[in-house]
Amino acid sequence: MKLTILGTSSALPTSERYPSAHVLNVHERLFLIDCGEGTQMQLRRTRIRFGKINHIFISHIHGDHIFGLNGLLSSLSLMGRKSTLHLYAPENFKRILHSHLNDFEINLSFEIEFIPLSGKDPVLILDDKYITVTSFPLQHRIPTFGFLFREKEAERNIIRECITEYQIPTVRIPAIKKGADFITHDGVVIKNSDITTPPAKPLSYAYCSDTKYFERLASFVKGVTLLYHEATFDKSMDDLAALTCHSTTLDAARTALNAGAGNLLIGHFSSRYRNVQFLVDEARSIFPDTHAAVDGTSYMVDETITP
Amino acid sequence: MKLTILGTSSALPTSERYPSAHVLNVHERLFLIDCGEGTQMQLRRTRIRFGKINHIFISHIHGDHIFGLNGLLSSLSLMGRKSTLHLYAPENFKRILHSHLNDFEINLSFEIEFIPLSGKDPVLILDDKYITVTSFPLQHRIPTFGFLFREKEAERNIIRECITEYQIPTVRIPAIKKGADFITHDGVVIKNSDITTPPAKPLSYAYCSDTKYFERLASFVKGVTLLYHEATFDKSMDDLAALTCHSTTLDAARTALNAGAGNLLIGHFSSRYRNVQFLVDEARSIFPDTHAAVDGTSYMVDETITP
Repeated sequence: MKLTILGTSSALPTSERYPSAHVLNVHERLFLIDCGEGTQMQLRRTRIRFGKINHIFISHIHGDHIFGLNGLLSSLSLMGRKSTLHLYAPENFKRILHSHLNDFEINLSFEIEFIPLSGKDPVLILDDKYITVTSFPLQHRIPTFGFLFREKEAERNIIRECITEYQIPTVRIPAIKKGADFITHDGVVIKNSDITTPPAKPLSYAYCSDTKYFERLASFVKGVTLLYHEATFDKSMDDLAALTCHSTTLDAARTALNAGAGNLLIGHFSSRYRNVQFLVDEARSIFPDTHAAVDGTSYMVDETITP
Repeated sequence: MKLTILGTSSALPTSERYPSAHVLNVHERLFLIDCGEGTQMQLRRTRIRFGKINHIFISHIHGDHIFGLNGLLSSLSLMGRKSTLHLYAPENFKRILHSHLNDFEINLSFEIEFIPLSGKDPVLILDDKYITVTSFPLQHRIPTFGFLFREKEAERNIIRECITEYQIPTVRIPAIKKGADFITHDGVVIKNSDITTPPAKPLSYAYCSDTKYFERLASFVKGVTLLYHEATFDKSMDDLAALTCHSTTLDAARTALNAGAGNLLIGHFSSRYRNVQFLVDEARSIFPDTHAAVDGTSYMVDETITP
């Protein structure tokens, strides 16, 4: 699991920070999360192949999370895409999307499967061979959703030497990888735990933008390996955060702490901050494993953040 | 007159070329011409102040010329703009603009005065103290317009020494600058041409994107100081140019030649070209004073192009 940050600005982009867009790479299948203005240019810059994106997740219908979508869809079409694109967005976006494609006379070369987001509880919205994706409600000025990407538990690993030692036939290996014991031709039961090692712990990534602080959020992302959480404002700006339904650095850190997250990445920074290191420092006072998201940077979603 | 190029790509942006947008600076008043995706980020990068843009000209309603507009308008509003913004665009865009602002729940902090473009002949669309702007029809797949920005003739310059020599009173100077002769208190007529020098030649800039070649276009931009003309394709791609209603390098050069333009800037390059120098070379075979527009570069609109 590799996360690439395409934009870390809030509503007003700066010369160094683009609007929100993340790309999550899971076994070379790409998931685009939000699509702020300039997403397609940032994809070019980070050399991410457009064609590998089959799923786009839109958290909410504010410009800084969506103004890059028409351009990206047009480009995919010009590039001759044929395969269906799965678009997950708040339910009212379906009408808007089709009306705008119509206004700009964009005839897409591919189908869009629209998956509406709604509700007050987490909903499983994607379940495939490698991962599940759950949407969950955030608390912003309009309907807004976060997303949790969770790898499925991999199979156990057979200890290579045991195959020879117990003369395990190839045909038995799939069952053993799934946890079965092995019975030798003498009828001796070899416990699964003696001939396998457990798989690597499944990784997970959660995206929370935009939201004010609320206690239940931590339960939606419990135990996540890497939590991305917006931190639009510094800790002194509680009032403006409340007014605009955004989070401060301390709000983000508190949710990470309560969720028992492995690492916290903060972003969606207000344009008033040129240097964001002090925002990281504020968050670290509550949650030490905090890092600032940086435009154009990739992170491996494992226990240690290595940009 | 200074021109800043924000984007030189055609429909598909590349990692180095953004979609179309130009800024013309006339006496520190800024005119934005087209507004492709990423225009506001390019304005940030080139350190152009958003607040000085009072007029936006949209050539046609294709995404690569307009997908940056919603973002720019939102940002201007967030920045608290109060003064009216003048938006010149094909007439059908008024409905689209208002419907999209409504869909995204964007409540602008300022008024937009919409000036519709239409017709088969040049139309004077702006006439102020320093310049006139004329729109003229291009020939593309949908209604498309070019723009000609022409400085007004400045006043003549009084030769400083003559003021003393002929004891010209201050009150007479405005008339002399406009061309009047001076009559001394002895009744001697001093010819205007003896006490003034002519003003600098008015500069002009024309923007032609997107269009196929047509003969009458040169007459619309006759004698222009700097002509920007799209050159989406190299000279071997006549057929694709005809099919898509775009120009080749030779089309652009022929129009520049027939118009007697001072210099030709070409842009709107197809993403198939990584290096565009050979496109410039092709155009120079017909019109030697051809240059390639480069993203983020400024040009003084005078007789010699100095990027």
